[in-house]
Amino acid sequence: MTLTEPPRVVIEDVTPTVDAGRYPLKLPVGSTLDVAANVFRDGHDLVAARVVYLAPGEPQWRSAPLVYDFNPDRWYGSFRVEEVGRWHYGIEAWPDHFGTWRSELEKRIQGGQDVRPELLVGSLLLERYAGLLRGEVAEHVRALAQTLASEDEPLAERLRAARDETLAFEVYGPLEPAELARSPLYELSVDRPEATFAAWYELFPRSQSATPGVHGTFADTARRLPEIAALGFDVVYLPPIHPIGVTHRKGKNNAPTAEPGDVGSPWGIGSSAGGHTAVHPELGTLEDFEHLVTSAKDLGLEIALDIAFQCSPDHPWVKEHPEWFFIRPDGTIRYAENPPKKYEDIYPLNFWCKDREAMWNACRDVFLFWVEHGVKTFRVDNPHTKPFAFWEWVLREVQTAHPDTVFLSESFTRPNRMKALAKLGFNQSYTYFTWKNSASELRDYFRELTSPPMTSYYRPNCFTNTPDILHEYLQHGGRPAFRARLVLAATLSPLYGIYSGFELCEGTPVRPGSEEYKDSEKYQLVTRDFNAPGNLKHDIARLNRIRRENVALQTLPNLEFVRSDYDGVLAYRRFAPGNEILVVVNLDPHATHETMIDVPVDRMGLGENEAYEVFDLLGGSRWVWRGRRNYVKLDPTERVAHVFRVIRRG
Amino acid sequence: MTLTEPPRVVIEDVTPTVDAGRYPLKLPVGSTLDVAANVFRDGHDLVAARVVYLAPGEPQWRSAPLVYDFNPDRWYGSFRVEEVGRWHYGIEAWPDHFGTWRSELEKRIQGGQDVRPELLVGSLLLERYAGLLRGEVAEHVRALAQTLASEDEPLAERLRAARDETLAFEVYGPLEPAELARSPLYELSVDRPEATFAAWYELFPRSQSATPGVHGTFADTARRLPEIAALGFDVVYLPPIHPIGVTHRKGKNNAPTAEPGDVGSPWGIGSSAGGHTAVHPELGTLEDFEHLVTSAKDLGLEIALDIAFQCSPDHPWVKEHPEWFFIRPDGTIRYAENPPKKYEDIYPLNFWCKDREAMWNACRDVFLFWVEHGVKTFRVDNPHTKPFAFWEWVLREVQTAHPDTVFLSESFTRPNRMKALAKLGFNQSYTYFTWKNSASELRDYFRELTSPPMTSYYRPNCFTNTPDILHEYLQHGGRPAFRARLVLAATLSPLYGIYSGFELCEGTPVRPGSEEYKDSEKYQLVTRDFNAPGNLKHDIARLNRIRRENVALQTLPNLEFVRSDYDGVLAYRRFAPGNEILVVVNLDPHATHETMIDVPVDRMGLGENEAYEVFDLLGGSRWVWRGRRNYVKLDPTERVAHVFRVIRRG
Repeated sequence: MTLTEPPRVVIEDVTPTVDAGRYPLKLPVGSTLDVAANVFRDGHDLVAARVVYLAPGEPQWRSAPLVYDFNPDRWYGSFRVEEVGRWHYGIEAWPDHFGTWRSELEKRIQGGQDVRPELLVGSLLLERYAGLLRGEVAEHVRALAQTLASEDEPLAERLRAARDETLAFEVYGPLEPAELARSPLYELSVDRPEATFAAWYELFPRSQSATPGVHGTFADTARRLPEIAALGFDVVYLPPIHPIGVTHRKGKNNAPTAEPGDVGSPWGIGSSAGGHTAVHPELGTLEDFEHLVTSAKDLGLEIALDIAFQCSPDHPWVKEHPEWFFIRPDGTIRYAENPPKKYEDIYPLNFWCKDREAMWNACRDVFLFWVEHGVKTFRVDNPHTKPFAFWEWVLREVQTAHPDTVFLSESFTRPNRMKALAKLGFNQSYTYFTWKNSASELRDYFRELTSPPMTSYYRPNCFTNTPDILHEYLQHGGRPAFRARLVLAATLSPLYGIYSGFELCEGTPVRPGSEEYKDSEKYQLVTRDFNAPGNLKHDIARLNRIRRENVALQTLPNLEFVRSDYDGVLAYRRFAPGNEILVVVNLDPHATHETMIDVPVDRMGLGENEAYEVFDLLGGSRWVWRGRRNYVKLDPTERVAHVFRVIRRG
Repeated sequence: MTLTEPPRVVIEDVTPTVDAGRYPLKLPVGSTLDVAANVFRDGHDLVAARVVYLAPGEPQWRSAPLVYDFNPDRWYGSFRVEEVGRWHYGIEAWPDHFGTWRSELEKRIQGGQDVRPELLVGSLLLERYAGLLRGEVAEHVRALAQTLASEDEPLAERLRAARDETLAFEVYGPLEPAELARSPLYELSVDRPEATFAAWYELFPRSQSATPGVHGTFADTARRLPEIAALGFDVVYLPPIHPIGVTHRKGKNNAPTAEPGDVGSPWGIGSSAGGHTAVHPELGTLEDFEHLVTSAKDLGLEIALDIAFQCSPDHPWVKEHPEWFFIRPDGTIRYAENPPKKYEDIYPLNFWCKDREAMWNACRDVFLFWVEHGVKTFRVDNPHTKPFAFWEWVLREVQTAHPDTVFLSESFTRPNRMKALAKLGFNQSYTYFTWKNSASELRDYFRELTSPPMTSYYRPNCFTNTPDILHEYLQHGGRPAFRARLVLAATLSPLYGIYSGFELCEGTPVRPGSEEYKDSEKYQLVTRDFNAPGNLKHDIARLNRIRRENVALQTLPNLEFVRSDYDGVLAYRRFAPGNEILVVVNLDPHATHETMIDVPVDRMGLGENEAYEVFDLLGGSRWVWRGRRNYVKLDPTERVAHVFRVIRRG
């Protein structure tokens, strides 16, 4: 045992990490981080390892031991994160001199050797450990060291000292700093529960007036909140509420020119009335907005704002900071383009302009302004069109000051770019869910979303629809299609959302082949009767209640798809200790299908021939099933899905 | 397009690498390295990427373009390694200004826009590229820039210039150094072909005398070489050839005390006749050894030496450098122990002693000494009991001077430690192959060995047996078991070996339950009649020839297991362009089995109902099969396996 050598313990393949520590890992508060690592060294001696972790704002690192699992040759440990904010963790390992000594001692005893010389070696070792310790523990270790060395004591007594049960805990750690091998330190972003489990409802405040043709207000919106709360939603998300520009304003159905009276797109941000820190005068005042936020809070709801860093030509920044935009050779400001399309009502910001620092600070201050006015959740518009470096900076700036802020990345682009934004700090991300409609598409996509590495950093928020996306499945499938997609979103993902009108099965596109709505709210006021026949409010309220009452639906990774003989009926299991949910959805909105499904009874802890109950939390029916193969039949005119709770009998 | 911004292109998830570049990747000379990476940026502009690589000793980096594969959103490229030694490679990426401009130009044209302003923008861009170029290329680009800008030219002419076919190649690269994003640089260890494809034969020179009881010599060994060459082996590996200690020498069958005349273990290295750079006097002289090396070379064989860094108490280093060993409190040198076992004939070296530098240099010089005497391949004994840091240093020291040296790690320990040694630089590694005897064990293990990440750094050398390992499958299975294991080793792994006596089906253990041989050659001379009835020389010669004639058997990753209805008949496919091998082995040495196997005709390029020939390269028979399901029957008393070449008809 040479103690002066450099660290010889290797720490490899620490999991979970995001890109080997380049980005923070994400976890909801109250959960447990299970870490693992390969820890080993050359030679025959034992090693020991622990996970060290630091809570936000705490001065002192804590640690938990790692335990070796011989097969598959890996070490495991865990700790609980009980506070929101940035944590840090890492792995430490060292040669386990005491463990090696004690293990060899037992082998020598079994081999019939005279172990008295070894007891002297052990005594010297314990003296060294005692020198590192303090108080009663040091005294205890020193006393045992003396007993080990004492030739006056009977051998049995000396061996009892060597085998002292508390000893291994007391001398747990390296004997010298140089012996300690350390992994890099990893960041861990711990979010409040709503960052990982919530139902979102998107509405345009200007459409909330009860009178057709009259511009809705924050007050009108506040009046709708009790209904939304009663449906079981958690977050009410508003498209931009800022003053809307008039220059090159778009007309109804995205007409190039607005007619008099056209209200324009809320994403054409900024007018003489103000920019990103002002509210559109027709919606009310900042005080009215604050009242809306308070009313929501009283109902257990949260208001989320849409932040789109782009400006209408009338935005105050255009006059005050023309250098924040792209200047053309002729001195004019460049409007947005996606050749051959032109967006003359939008000026993109130049995030790499010379006055970058002031501009980035101004953007950060937009978030801070709304935080001060009670908003803690932001849906960020098209973040992939702004620099990654900006997001990494601004999210950290805001969350350092306000750890409970939540950012949703509204990015629909290639996978690596959507993933990069999640890694850079967005707490939640939009998904391709709207475009995954067949059983195999849903299976492939949700397997990726609910497995490592994506679970370490990507939190899907599955919207059934958005003001930009009305999928043809909904256009052609009618009410059963809306019901099926609602069940899928609400039960496949702990975070999901609907955009206002979905509950009325609005499915008319602006033209065949388009995913844009006809008479889209993006460009005009829309008045709705939310109690119109055929509305899905009963389904929504029921599903949101089922989600709240079943923990299996509240976390992401616990998903297992279940085989059904007919592939058009999608079946999957979500599970948590004591809570088994089995969802069966008929994906065909036009026809009844019956099929056998293969319930994975073994993994549910049920016998192959055991009888059990399946209680349809959605429809209220109850069946007794037995074993693996069971029968389901779903007529989309009656019910599109079962959301079974599986209950062991007796 | 702002060119003054910092690099905005992200390079992620470069493959292949070993632990993100911590260790070198391995590749045989003449092969192609296929690299891939995620390359992307924010915004709408295109990016471009290339792999850059540096051959050993060359001053100039070369590059090859990466090509984007939209689905699954990844970039791919490759380069050929045509020289043995340490290469380096990395990924570079940059904003593709010209590509973006040209792509948008086409969209504008399709959208019916007046593109003349854009042609001026493009002209300025090309002028900037031209400024970075030289000679004719610069002139060409500048000329095109002028055409683009020329309002005298017809528009069609100017567009023709924009679409010039060679232009994209000429302006391929970043416009400014700051735009270039770079991955880390990765090391690539390129070995000579024999490092990855070879058949090994292990023999004890002292047992090569034709006369029982007479100590064999290098000259006796040289006389056996033509037979070994005729069997198709490539490497003849010798256990340590150094002088053997007398103090505490072990007797026959590992008896604690040697009888007079006992020859001792070759791993008890060192006596008054010398240490690691001497030869055992009874084997001959260093000149005799050199003659053996030359004789081997003349036959296309290579001599591999066993290097075991441990000393008998009689090793010269014990007297000259007692400080290189572990000193006990009483001043004596510590012998090896694995409590309760004691190995008093072996002194382990203390690699972290104070005189570490001299001791490590001495060990390095052992390798260099034998390299000077013609040895380029070393089997290293128990490397996991010496520091990882030592191996990383010494292998690099030797291979920097002699890039064609090959090191085989003889380590049988937990998986992560075996893998660590491979990562640190060992070109080849022993495996758990001897302990994998059922179909499922073989499938699981070889799937891991032939898939990433192991293929990036771990080269299995599958020995059927070693002087330490006689598996019970061989003890109880008789000749059919030996034949089956031979086929498995030779066709599952490009590197395989047998230890002398295997070809005679020697299968008697020292005692029931032991994997040690009875009357093991490790402790005594053994005389064999290699032409004894039942020998496997025909099988061996045939298999080694099949390996040489079929490229599918020469690389590791091209393995696919094939379903057979009866699991005790293992079937697998090895494939290379134009070379389809299908191996079927009856793993039961005691009984005939017949089964249907599912030939993966689709992946072999055969139709579902197409007829094809299977020619048994081992047995010489030929059948016409059709489609997927085909019948095999193997009677172990006649043949244990088919090694089919699959041949398309007509």
